[in-house]
Amino acid sequence: MARTLVINPGSSSKKYAVYEEGTVLLSMRFERTGSGYEECVDIGGQRQKCEGISTDSYGEALARVLAELSVLTALGDPTIATVVVRVVVPGTAFQRHAVIDDVYVHRLRECEDLAPLHVPHILREIATVRRILPAAHVIAASDSAFHATLPPSVREYSIPARDAATYDLYHFGYHGLSVASVLARFHAVVGADPQRTVIAHVGSGVSVTGVKEGKSMYTTMGYAPGSGLMMATRAGDIDTGATLALMRKRSWRPLDTETYLSTHGGLLAATGSADLRQVLLQAAQHDSAATVALERYVGGIARAIAAAHVTVGGADTIVFTATVLERSAILREHLMHALAPLGVIYDAERNDRMCSRDGVISAVGSPIKVAVIRTDEMGEMYRVGEEVKKTPA
Amino acid sequence: MARTLVINPGSSSKKYAVYEEGTVLLSMRFERTGSGYEECVDIGGQRQKCEGISTDSYGEALARVLAELSVLTALGDPTIATVVVRVVVPGTAFQRHAVIDDVYVHRLRECEDLAPLHVPHILREIATVRRILPAAHVIAASDSAFHATLPPSVREYSIPARDAATYDLYHFGYHGLSVASVLARFHAVVGADPQRTVIAHVGSGVSVTGVKEGKSMYTTMGYAPGSGLMMATRAGDIDTGATLALMRKRSWRPLDTETYLSTHGGLLAATGSADLRQVLLQAAQHDSAATVALERYVGGIARAIAAAHVTVGGADTIVFTATVLERSAILREHLMHALAPLGVIYDAERNDRMCSRDGVISAVGSPIKVAVIRTDEMGEMYRVGEEVKKTPA
Repeated sequence: MARTLVINPGSSSKKYAVYEEGTVLLSMRFERTGSGYEECVDIGGQRQKCEGISTDSYGEALARVLAELSVLTALGDPTIATVVVRVVVPGTAFQRHAVIDDVYVHRLRECEDLAPLHVPHILREIATVRRILPAAHVIAASDSAFHATLPPSVREYSIPARDAATYDLYHFGYHGLSVASVLARFHAVVGADPQRTVIAHVGSGVSVTGVKEGKSMYTTMGYAPGSGLMMATRAGDIDTGATLALMRKRSWRPLDTETYLSTHGGLLAATGSADLRQVLLQAAQHDSAATVALERYVGGIARAIAAAHVTVGGADTIVFTATVLERSAILREHLMHALAPLGVIYDAERNDRMCSRDGVISAVGSPIKVAVIRTDEMGEMYRVGEEVKKTPA
Repeated sequence: MARTLVINPGSSSKKYAVYEEGTVLLSMRFERTGSGYEECVDIGGQRQKCEGISTDSYGEALARVLAELSVLTALGDPTIATVVVRVVVPGTAFQRHAVIDDVYVHRLRECEDLAPLHVPHILREIATVRRILPAAHVIAASDSAFHATLPPSVREYSIPARDAATYDLYHFGYHGLSVASVLARFHAVVGADPQRTVIAHVGSGVSVTGVKEGKSMYTTMGYAPGSGLMMATRAGDIDTGATLALMRKRSWRPLDTETYLSTHGGLLAATGSADLRQVLLQAAQHDSAATVALERYVGGIARAIAAAHVTVGGADTIVFTATVLERSAILREHLMHALAPLGVIYDAERNDRMCSRDGVISAVGSPIKVAVIRTDEMGEMYRVGEEVKKTPA
């Protein structure tokens, strides 16, 4: 039976899922931990095991997934007909879902030095796929494609149009696969179609997107996925003047600066931990750095939601998604209090009982509804694969 | 009689005003025009003349002011006892009003290469004052002092605290003199004390500030005054990733980048004109670049007002100030429509009849009031001078 393998290659984690007729058969997650690497296996949605693995094994993640699949389908046919790879790369050429052919790989290589923290991982994964699964169709699921509808007033920066065009400098936006997956399940959770919606995605990456009648109107991440709001280790938007001052003082080149802001910023910089659970714990113990960091984190998200709210002409629903907002009732409570001036009415009972489930958590009669809808980037990538296969080349 | 000279030295304009017992006696403005320089003289608030002058005369602006004052006070005593100079420089040391002594000048010189577009003008002006008026008290009116109360969660960036402290990298904020001048006249215009207020300053510089019980809680300009919103020639916040990509592609150093973003960005980049009146005219003629630029300009200000609104816990009043918002009913109309989702009700008649006057322009019963209050940075600088003179050293 023809199966689809969905791959989400990150800088410190890789996720794989094998779909069969729209259902997840097997999913595996490889993640860097404090001491080394960890591998977790889920079959049919049930966690089977999590165990430490070597750096070499992390490099051979795809082979391990296929081995696991062979065991699982011992009596069946382990064919992978389609592979979908998540692509998170700045560039107009990468702002659409596409078949990954030689031209596509060549384009990716050309911008390796422009996005040195992202492109090498994607290229390495594509090379492995082509070597191990030479017969598979390989498809790129663009994380910025959803934002291709951004109005020019948001997509363009205030620099000369010729320079923007020559160097392809635009506000691309990311987390598009997550936003699309949330909108696909919106009606089932909220009981109405999405009209004017603000979606806050808060995981290790953080972004806020305003959507009007299905179209992205505003999003906080811009050219690169390190921009916009404060994240786990990414600083988010920093005044260019401050960045340039830092470059002068340290005699840094662009790559040094980008690495610093992407890996030494955010919650990690402020508290020593990139894990919000740890920061919440420290703040509860009145640690002042953690308290300030939490205030900045919540304040930034609330301000971005307010900005998206006016951009869509007044949101009827705010959606909370991704690990942190799906799991942390405390963070949701902080956010909903901060959003009270927009017309969000908090309901402690509804909020508290919501954990890793979907549902409306604002009070009955709240002028703006707040709903938790779990993100499903992998499922969205599977759908993208089906869609691209149907599109004539 | 002891007089105070107030000086606002910019990169392409200089403003001077002579105060006597709190009243403006003489004010002069020197400005770069398309072809050269222009000098305008007002006496007792009445325009006397505007004429073209040479570059040399622009360099001798202070001497020309004193000559004009001598003529005006032919029968009186032309003594200038106090000089107040506006200081717009990143740095914790410059975030307070202060006597300008040798230590202060030394500190300014030390950061000349950090703010190469601003500090040289200020240093040159101070040197001229000290040479021509050696007996005068010289006082710095800090444009960021008002924002010294910003909460740490806004003042600090998401970078390691040690680096921020070592290199003095904070979100300082500017337009503080303007905001203070507006708050000083708030009660007279609105009929109540300012409680939770958002102030949009839109001139050639653009910023939005949220104020709660007199204290700055949020402001869009950060480390340097080129940051935050799109302005006449300043790009405002641009994704660091895009800036770094531009630096790589053009092999630019920080100074090139800063000059480009400060002088080639904003309305100028988008439309070829830094003058909003021209942009409005082009947009009215359906010019697409002007239409997009206007949308970005208005959208950015509206989003910042929404952000400030949630930060102060729900604004009761939004204040429009500085040349563009004091004069352009069209821009105010665009903005008020964009702010409708926050609870701003537009009143065409009230808005249309307001030009270079103070008053409330939102509809009766608007949940959030909108008022126009003219900025008076020079008057605020005079008050700062009086205050600093009273403070024991």
